[in-house]
Amino acid sequence: MTSQNGTGFIQVSHPNDFLSLYLYAKMEPALYLIPVTLGETELSRVLPAFNAEVIPQIRHFIVEDVRSARRFLKKVNRDIRIDDLTFYPMGKHASPELFASYLCPLEKGESIGVISEAGCPAIADPGADVVAIAQRKGLRVIPLVGPSSILLAVMASGFNGQSFAFNGYLPIEPADRAKRLKQLEQRAYSEHQTQLFIETPYRNAKLFAEILRTCRPQTRLCVAAGLTCPEEFIKTRTIQDWKKHPLPDLSKVPAIWVIG
Amino acid sequence: MTSQNGTGFIQVSHPNDFLSLYLYAKMEPALYLIPVTLGETELSRVLPAFNAEVIPQIRHFIVEDVRSARRFLKKVNRDIRIDDLTFYPMGKHASPELFASYLCPLEKGESIGVISEAGCPAIADPGADVVAIAQRKGLRVIPLVGPSSILLAVMASGFNGQSFAFNGYLPIEPADRAKRLKQLEQRAYSEHQTQLFIETPYRNAKLFAEILRTCRPQTRLCVAAGLTCPEEFIKTRTIQDWKKHPLPDLSKVPAIWVIG
Repeated sequence: MTSQNGTGFIQVSHPNDFLSLYLYAKMEPALYLIPVTLGETELSRVLPAFNAEVIPQIRHFIVEDVRSARRFLKKVNRDIRIDDLTFYPMGKHASPELFASYLCPLEKGESIGVISEAGCPAIADPGADVVAIAQRKGLRVIPLVGPSSILLAVMASGFNGQSFAFNGYLPIEPADRAKRLKQLEQRAYSEHQTQLFIETPYRNAKLFAEILRTCRPQTRLCVAAGLTCPEEFIKTRTIQDWKKHPLPDLSKVPAIWVIG
Repeated sequence: MTSQNGTGFIQVSHPNDFLSLYLYAKMEPALYLIPVTLGETELSRVLPAFNAEVIPQIRHFIVEDVRSARRFLKKVNRDIRIDDLTFYPMGKHASPELFASYLCPLEKGESIGVISEAGCPAIADPGADVVAIAQRKGLRVIPLVGPSSILLAVMASGFNGQSFAFNGYLPIEPADRAKRLKQLEQRAYSEHQTQLFIETPYRNAKLFAEILRTCRPQTRLCVAAGLTCPEEFIKTRTIQDWKKHPLPDLSKVPAIWVIG
């Protein structure tokens, strides 16, 4: 059974909807925001089959890291010929002035993909600058579905999902850090808004100790680590309960910290 | 090639990673948070194949709406025998006191699924209360990957993805509403925090007019509507630019409003 929808995709349905195949008569030229896994896990664990149909049709990729982007593309489909692709760096050492030029292929009608190091591009990761320029130029931007540790953490925390804020990293300096923690805890109470933040894995144990020291005993803390991976750990407890339960070793596991 | 990971899943790999099949020797008993589509779109557009492997093994479902949950399950796999399943309502008229009892099967080792009306359960949707009780009881909670209009909107807006807040609905009363809009705009500037909110579709045009009237000319507004569906519309413009561009008819399209 085939059908054509508004986007110009021809779709071949299968009795099992998850096995549908999309054949693109003409894929809509766009800046495709392409999520990747959050760690060592199968692509089919976290990415829709649709993404694997779109990706092989893209020839230009704006990426945080070329090597890991190549590895990802090979995993998506080993028939992709990496040498035929063009990669444009958007990592720490890339010059933002170049970003506008990266979008030239799209202005000529060729799709571009954006790939960051983990999870969804432009969320707690580079990519937002490129998207902003695309929006300014009136180019079509299509975000693909994939794993976001922020979203998964809010879902699994049991905290308010009608109002939540992701706050990135806390300040490094101890006094600023404690002040910021207090401020986020205060906002969780006063606005009933769930507060999320992150830390580099090797500092996780230290951050945990700081939270136990700084927050009120009845405040609830959710630690969500290694999401969607075999080592996944998601636990919500009050601060006073956490004081009785040691944290597993998260020194190498990306974690999201949630106060509710 | 088969391998067994820490969670007790036996996994059969395929050269194309997206076609891997998971065979569950024993699926980990848990409260599975099961996302659904955001509208009329194929499941394979927005849901990983993994979800379709997990769902048929679950016999108990806590759902926002029984009819649409049944329809979704049949779409996932038409071999699922709906009559063998038990559904527990968590919609508007459900009593929160019952929620704890819903979790009894899991306490005996049987998995339970949570399904809301659109997107991810417990995010701008019911489900968080049930998850909170599961966390309190120390039960395992596993969030599955799926589409979140909030996340997709942040990605595609081009706004700051290092700091963003979802604020649910604005107040209804006009003066409160304008005040709240001003407050969110102020926070977008003072904290460089992207601000998101939602409205029921039939009020979208009115909200748009209110935003144009209330916000500063240089403030950027992203309207993200019908995400992942054929009618998808995502556009970022300054308020002064929006004044020159009419909005398409979104009176029946769920939209996310983003100020950056």
